[in-house]
Amino acid sequence: MKIAEVIGKVTLSRKHPSLDGARWLVAIPLKSDELNSKKKKKTEPFVIYDELGASPGCQIAVSEGAEAAAPFHPDVKPIDAYVSAILDQVEVY
Amino acid sequence: MKIAEVIGKVTLSRKHPSLDGARWLVAIPLKSDELNSKKKKKTEPFVIYDELGASPGCQIAVSEGAEAAAPFHPDVKPIDAYVSAILDQVEVY
Amino acid sequence: MKIAEVIGKVTLSRKHPSLDGARWLVAIPLKSDELNSKKKKKTEPFVIYDELGASPGCQIAVSEGAEAAAPFHPDVKPIDAYVSAILDQVEVY
Amino acid sequence: MKIAEVIGKVTLSRKHPSLDGARWLVAIPLKSDELNSKKKKKTEPFVIYDELGASPGCQIAVSEGAEAAAPFHPDVKPIDAYVSAILDQVEVY
Amino acid sequence: MKIAEVIGKVTLSRKHPSLDGARWLVAIPLKSDELNSKKKKKTEPFVIYDELGASPGCQIAVSEGAEAAAPFHPDVKPIDAYVSAILDQVEVY
Repeated sequence: MKIAEVIGKVTLSRKHPSLDGARWLVAIPLKSDELNSKKKKKTEPFVIYDELGASPGCQIAVSEGAEAAAPFHPDVKPIDAYVSAILDQVEVY
Repeated sequence: MKIAEVIGKVTLSRKHPSLDGARWLVAIPLKSDELNSKKKKKTEPFVIYDELGASPGCQIAVSEGAEAAAPFHPDVKPIDAYVSAILDQVEVY
Repeated sequence: MKIAEVIGKVTLSRKHPSLDGARWLVAIPLKSDELNSKKKKKTEPFVIYDELGASPGCQIAVSEGAEAAAPFHPDVKPIDAYVSAILDQVEVY
Repeated sequence: MKIAEVIGKVTLSRKHPSLDGARWLVAIPLKSDELNSKKKKKTEPFVIYDELGASPGCQIAVSEGAEAAAPFHPDVKPIDAYVSAILDQVEVY
Repeated sequence: MKIAEVIGKVTLSRKHPSLDGARWLVAIPLKSDELNSKKKKKTEPFVIYDELGASPGCQIAVSEGAEAAAPFHPDVKPIDAYVSAILDQVEVY
């Protein structure tokens, strides 16, 4: 799972009907030297489906691809990025 | 889901029969510093299946991989990028 | 789907039995500034299964991952890149 | 499978219920010139589900995407990175 | 399928039980200017399941993701990179 940091949120104007009522965060993947630092480089953000209530600045673990849609099985949703966990501590040796 | 911006469209000459009659956009993924700015760097565009009527300059959320084909389930289509939503607002903290 | 350009072809010596008799192209993904230009940067080529008869210099739309094997369903083939369409026109606004 | 090196571990505060009780490592993918060397460049770390007891500095083989969730089949878990093996020797010609 | 070159092999100490008795190669993906040249840049190697007997220096076509596990269907193995073919000739126009 990617480690990412929540940098914002998006509201959707038109969308696939199965995506109604969800909470969508914007996050950026972190590099190893950004894990416990304030400095963040510009990189490709992505939109993530959140059910855990992650707030701005939270570090999260994001499942991507087919595993992102797993929690909705057997419903079929075009979701490919899902907040699997909010990180408490990241310990780097 | 990737955040991308619509930069054009493609017409297909020969194609897989299951792809008839679809609307195909060309979009580029955005970096976090491009979300609310006119400046866009040259990057790898991709062709996306659109059912929501996204127009030029629209910012969209794109599902990729198996989730892109989910809306057509149980039909089987070789589609790996699908416009899941047209973004209304992208709020970056 | 990635936009790629056909740069060559490969012949296979040993292969998985399900891949017999196929036509394999070599293509490179294109960046947005390479779409309608002769100049191409060196990048990572990939081998693609072609049933549409794409020829050298053709711009093609390539489905990757599970969707690339979709056209052979329910047969199971280790194919992860498939020519879904030959592009006629790429219109960039 | 990616070759990665264990650089730490994470503890989760809130998480998807199916992820209880697992052991989560933080690792970085290695480049070919880092395989048998102490020098490691800063790159994108990822969180990995570990059942083999990999320890700090271990070189591991990581399965990603749908194959990472394969060991839990038919249970459905949003896991997209799994330690498939701890490497004993990496012989580069 | 990625085009890669075999640069070595790995032996596994601890592993998922379904991975017993396999032959594991280390390979690096090739760029288009490296296809028919001795010069290779340092890049991210990956571990690949080989049943075709590819030897050092061989150029191979590698299937990734769910398609890499296809040859073992219906058995479920956490394999995400599989040698689908050993390349005989790579002809670049």
